[in-house]
Amino acid sequence: MSRSDVTPIEEKYLHDWSGRRYGVPSAVVRPLTVEDLRAILAEANNARTSCAIQGGRTGVSGGCAPGDGELVVALESLNKIEEVDPVSGIAVVQGGVVLETLQTEVERLGWSFPVDLGSRGSCQVGGNAATNAGGSRVVKYGNMREWVLGVEAVLANGALIGPPNRLVKNNAGYSLSSLLIGSEGTLGVISRLALRLVPLVPVRRTLLMALSPEANVNVLLREAKTGLREALSAFEIMWPDYVDAAMLVQQRARPLPASFTGLRAALIEVEGDGEATIDALLESFLTRQMEDGSVVDAIVSMSSQDAAALWAIRESVGEIQATIRPYAGFDLGMPAKDHDEFAAKAKALLLHEMPQCRSFFFGHIGDDNLHALVGPCLTPEERATAERLLFELMPPLTTSVTAEHGIGRKRKPYLSMSRSPADITVMKNIKAALDPHNILNRGRVFDMPIG
Amino acid sequence: MSRSDVTPIEEKYLHDWSGRRYGVPSAVVRPLTVEDLRAILAEANNARTSCAIQGGRTGVSGGCAPGDGELVVALESLNKIEEVDPVSGIAVVQGGVVLETLQTEVERLGWSFPVDLGSRGSCQVGGNAATNAGGSRVVKYGNMREWVLGVEAVLANGALIGPPNRLVKNNAGYSLSSLLIGSEGTLGVISRLALRLVPLVPVRRTLLMALSPEANVNVLLREAKTGLREALSAFEIMWPDYVDAAMLVQQRARPLPASFTGLRAALIEVEGDGEATIDALLESFLTRQMEDGSVVDAIVSMSSQDAAALWAIRESVGEIQATIRPYAGFDLGMPAKDHDEFAAKAKALLLHEMPQCRSFFFGHIGDDNLHALVGPCLTPEERATAERLLFELMPPLTTSVTAEHGIGRKRKPYLSMSRSPADITVMKNIKAALDPHNILNRGRVFDMPIG
Repeated sequence: MSRSDVTPIEEKYLHDWSGRRYGVPSAVVRPLTVEDLRAILAEANNARTSCAIQGGRTGVSGGCAPGDGELVVALESLNKIEEVDPVSGIAVVQGGVVLETLQTEVERLGWSFPVDLGSRGSCQVGGNAATNAGGSRVVKYGNMREWVLGVEAVLANGALIGPPNRLVKNNAGYSLSSLLIGSEGTLGVISRLALRLVPLVPVRRTLLMALSPEANVNVLLREAKTGLREALSAFEIMWPDYVDAAMLVQQRARPLPASFTGLRAALIEVEGDGEATIDALLESFLTRQMEDGSVVDAIVSMSSQDAAALWAIRESVGEIQATIRPYAGFDLGMPAKDHDEFAAKAKALLLHEMPQCRSFFFGHIGDDNLHALVGPCLTPEERATAERLLFELMPPLTTSVTAEHGIGRKRKPYLSMSRSPADITVMKNIKAALDPHNILNRGRVFDMPIG
Repeated sequence: MSRSDVTPIEEKYLHDWSGRRYGVPSAVVRPLTVEDLRAILAEANNARTSCAIQGGRTGVSGGCAPGDGELVVALESLNKIEEVDPVSGIAVVQGGVVLETLQTEVERLGWSFPVDLGSRGSCQVGGNAATNAGGSRVVKYGNMREWVLGVEAVLANGALIGPPNRLVKNNAGYSLSSLLIGSEGTLGVISRLALRLVPLVPVRRTLLMALSPEANVNVLLREAKTGLREALSAFEIMWPDYVDAAMLVQQRARPLPASFTGLRAALIEVEGDGEATIDALLESFLTRQMEDGSVVDAIVSMSSQDAAALWAIRESVGEIQATIRPYAGFDLGMPAKDHDEFAAKAKALLLHEMPQCRSFFFGHIGDDNLHALVGPCLTPEERATAERLLFELMPPLTTSVTAEHGIGRKRKPYLSMSRSPADITVMKNIKAALDPHNILNRGRVFDMPIG
């Protein structure tokens, strides 16, 4: 291992984006090469040292934050974009490349990497794959899983699997990449990835709609899916408290008309080839919704600045969170058709059981993903109460305690609400087979003996 | 286990679609329920009996054909479409449902299941998932993997993993579904699946083009991808010998103009919302290609009958195979940009080394997937020679000895040409963790001790 790998234990290595801490690591290493990374893990494996694997540290489930005595392995120096193939539309990158850096680079060449999330400026593509990141365009483009052709990864014992598959079709043996994606760094450390790209989309429009109290969001979603089809690239619903809070924290930006106050809002993004086609699709969809009374007011973006201002409403999460820390945050997975009813029920239940709290519901309804924030100033006990209330309101096994953020440490007590005992047994068998001494992100996802 | 499960050993259970046999099974059972299937596997596991798992038996890699003394477990009675949700666009089906049955049922409700292959009338969706089936629209829709939200599966010991995830986003624990997809029945038997659907596409056009000898298929593919974007749903190339053979075996159908003789042909499918938009896209693409001399003649489908006649040329594989049995068949995976050069080199090499043979190249170039048939009347030794010649012409590890058909038994000797020793070790560790007595499709993909 080269000397330059060992780095001072700065503040930033101690917590993830949610700010929670779990302990103080023994050291921080930043491998400069994949061979470095292999040597570091092999040595840790021999010593049975648990490693906290860190990408951009933008997670909120406590996965990357180190526990006492853990070795932090930070991927930030493995940040090369090795190749962008503008003919086949493939990028080969190291795991520590920042998502926005990749997006910018491929856009220069006429291509787009369609996975996009608010933390694009810090999160790393290796971490995006390890956590199967979702984001705002999943309704059209799917999760990170859909964009990874293959990964190269270092296992606990330093073995290197790969090279990353870069073929559209390859059925030679098990897809180890598919297993590693979403395993939250507990099975291997993703060092390189081959990613699919799509040609840049020429036209994009954003539409923000104020929904009448009678509007059925399920009907709206179905009509958007079947009417706008592939043009639909985002479909988000924000419930009234969230819209009001977002308008407050976004005062500096252009304010929304008063007609949006106290109503649910839907944010829709459409994209495609021809301006005329896209505008016609959008107009016909919007006209129908206004005629039947579902939509009482709407704003359509006329420029990318317009669009950014509308998205800023939806992306006010960080600012709202800042006003209610410590809070309980949720990324619930449940069928889209249940979101509206669940939000109403959960809100009433929280009001009854925790009358001192406010709750804010919003989310990627097009992706079966409902977010909620409950605050302000929760004690750990109150946070646990809020979690119990919301999770127990969801049917077990057919819903998810984490649609996109991952289990990490924070959701570990609730894994069995979303996965059957047989599933968890198999996961543990796989973990034991790949990381017998449990050195990779020990204590995340589920507990295992050190072995 | 109910008595009705034990079925006579009919001819059809003895081989897969390629016709090869490996032995005579001890019995054939057809579970009528998932509980039946669990009991059958648990009993086989206790007795260390290897089970040959059979879906529609349309594979060509020898995966489903039983060896001597194996227990055939045929899924054909687990054939219920349990639910089609026309709001969220999801189907929940048992593993033994025939692909075409599913396609027809969801189309009736305005949706489409976009995975499509020539064997749609026999293959089963459980088998499609177990083998990560590809087909003809992968350039747009990806492989089966992209369309499975989750699976329920029975493990070797009878344990049931599931229920199948049906959420667009769910990051609660490892994706066991992703691991099972493409594992060729060696890790578990897929009993139920939740599948994504897409709204029916209103307009579809098929275009068959004769390419000039100077045309660069890579340029053509890049222009189709970036110019037609999401409208492009298939991009296939057939080399001259294949076109000529297809024209011969399809004499009863409408013959192609003589201008196609001796040239490579490209088959393109486009689809989308508006006839005018699609026709304009197609016309502008075709005009450009004719003006620069890449395309010398072209036929555009004006009806679904037209389209079927054009696809019949591409789907003449079965008829051509029938004229050259026994033959060596290939489904090579390599970057699209290498197909044209590889086809030329491979053809010349085969002509030199096996002058008594003819070779036919064709394939899903948009999916990095090149098919070849070499025949006629090959002895097993000649088949092995043809395999060696073609596989050794491909760079190791970055290409695939099986883009879509799977390893099965047939490609087992060549797995290490496409996967590294570390990868194969991990696969074997996973197999040992999930099926310690090696009862599921024993001897397929790789060899393992009985345990």
